[in-house]
Amino acid sequence: MVYVIKVGGNVIDNPALLDRFLADFAAVPGKKILIHGGGKIATRIGDKLGIESKYIDGRRITDADTIDVVTMVYGGLVNKQVVAQLQAKGCNAIGLTGADANIIPAVKRPVKTIDYGFVGDIPAGAVQAAPIKLLLDAGLTPVFSPLTHDGNGQILNTNADTIAASLAVALSAHYPVRLIYCFEKKGVLRNAADDDSVINLINRDIYKTLLAEGVLSDGILPKLDNAFSAIESGVKEVLIGHANDVRNNTTEAVAGTLIC
Amino acid sequence: MVYVIKVGGNVIDNPALLDRFLADFAAVPGKKILIHGGGKIATRIGDKLGIESKYIDGRRITDADTIDVVTMVYGGLVNKQVVAQLQAKGCNAIGLTGADANIIPAVKRPVKTIDYGFVGDIPAGAVQAAPIKLLLDAGLTPVFSPLTHDGNGQILNTNADTIAASLAVALSAHYPVRLIYCFEKKGVLRNAADDDSVINLINRDIYKTLLAEGVLSDGILPKLDNAFSAIESGVKEVLIGHANDVRNNTTEAVAGTLIC
Repeated sequence: MVYVIKVGGNVIDNPALLDRFLADFAAVPGKKILIHGGGKIATRIGDKLGIESKYIDGRRITDADTIDVVTMVYGGLVNKQVVAQLQAKGCNAIGLTGADANIIPAVKRPVKTIDYGFVGDIPAGAVQAAPIKLLLDAGLTPVFSPLTHDGNGQILNTNADTIAASLAVALSAHYPVRLIYCFEKKGVLRNAADDDSVINLINRDIYKTLLAEGVLSDGILPKLDNAFSAIESGVKEVLIGHANDVRNNTTEAVAGTLIC
Repeated sequence: MVYVIKVGGNVIDNPALLDRFLADFAAVPGKKILIHGGGKIATRIGDKLGIESKYIDGRRITDADTIDVVTMVYGGLVNKQVVAQLQAKGCNAIGLTGADANIIPAVKRPVKTIDYGFVGDIPAGAVQAAPIKLLLDAGLTPVFSPLTHDGNGQILNTNADTIAASLAVALSAHYPVRLIYCFEKKGVLRNAADDDSVINLINRDIYKTLLAEGVLSDGILPKLDNAFSAIESGVKEVLIGHANDVRNNTTEAVAGTLIC
């Protein structure tokens, strides 16, 4: 089994949560990959540099100044600090972007009504599994920042959840893959105000019912869409759970929400 | 032959020079490694962030704020832009720091009269050749930013010339290695004011004579010390030359200064 584990920006931004998460992640045996966010830190550094963060519908607009900021913060500051901390915990991490070894060639999002700027979408089948397999089989743990490239020299900003799903799909041709989304909730909640209202299992039918009931928060919908898309493309299991539960979620005794 | 090629900050900081250099580097056939600087860009970003660059004897003092700046700029902005540009030129680059795959474990420089802060020195024999060999043998081109780590979670700032020499020495146990220092002069100059006064060959005896004559500029001395140290530790050839001559300097028709 390969564990493809995504950890969100709220964990990355909290040193105590991050330290605990990285210790748990380092303790996961076998082959594993980490994908991290870092949006809040990018926003803070951008503010200090006088570069305003712009969003439309919750998505960052990545202009020329902003792609430099996220390249620095995601690809440099966050990625290399995570790698150094994993090394200290005995995990032989190697930090990457999608440009490295051409692992994730992407396409700059076409301008329709909104110009998202230097944002990359990943075409189906674009991810190169061979270099990841090379690293995993050598006992290394790839750590991805949410950056891709266009093949013409331009770094692109790509959603970390999407990168995680794309990597999981590409690797599922070579290994059984469990994709785990770690965030600051215990799973998909039936009641956003009740942290213990975790829905243990969601399949397509249950998802339709939940959507009809209108109980799911807006933030979770892209994660669920990514999850179903990954499963339909060959990923064995998808889990959504708390960063503190990552160790359990790589065993049979899963916490959080199982998508199937 | 493996070419270990270091390119200095003045080239990195000049888009036209950099583009030409990367095109020439991409065209070098066979196994190769790039090590880049980036100090001027780090200084500019640090200035914008209100972090003053401090130097003693030409060496950057790396306090806690500064190590974050160089981690962002060297490990993120410069490294990932170089990787994306090499990918566009058909070179399958993979960007790394010394923390990645634990390739360059270093030791924080002890405080004697000067506290250099988060600066890393590389103990003899510390560089791990195995992960570099894995990448080279898979047809990948490692691109190193001048960062190492202490094994306890701390990124350290390490001189790029020193990293290049250390990598060249470690690889010389596995391959014949030519170490090439590329900068904005045509080689080691007999007369700093005359760009065409290149000394074609320097050995230990000639070096002693040149030192006695006092004709060498201060900036070149650490490069020459690194070069002799590398040769004494197994590196086959060391060249010092212009970034524009990198393609020639990977053939027999070398330009620049050969150290032997």
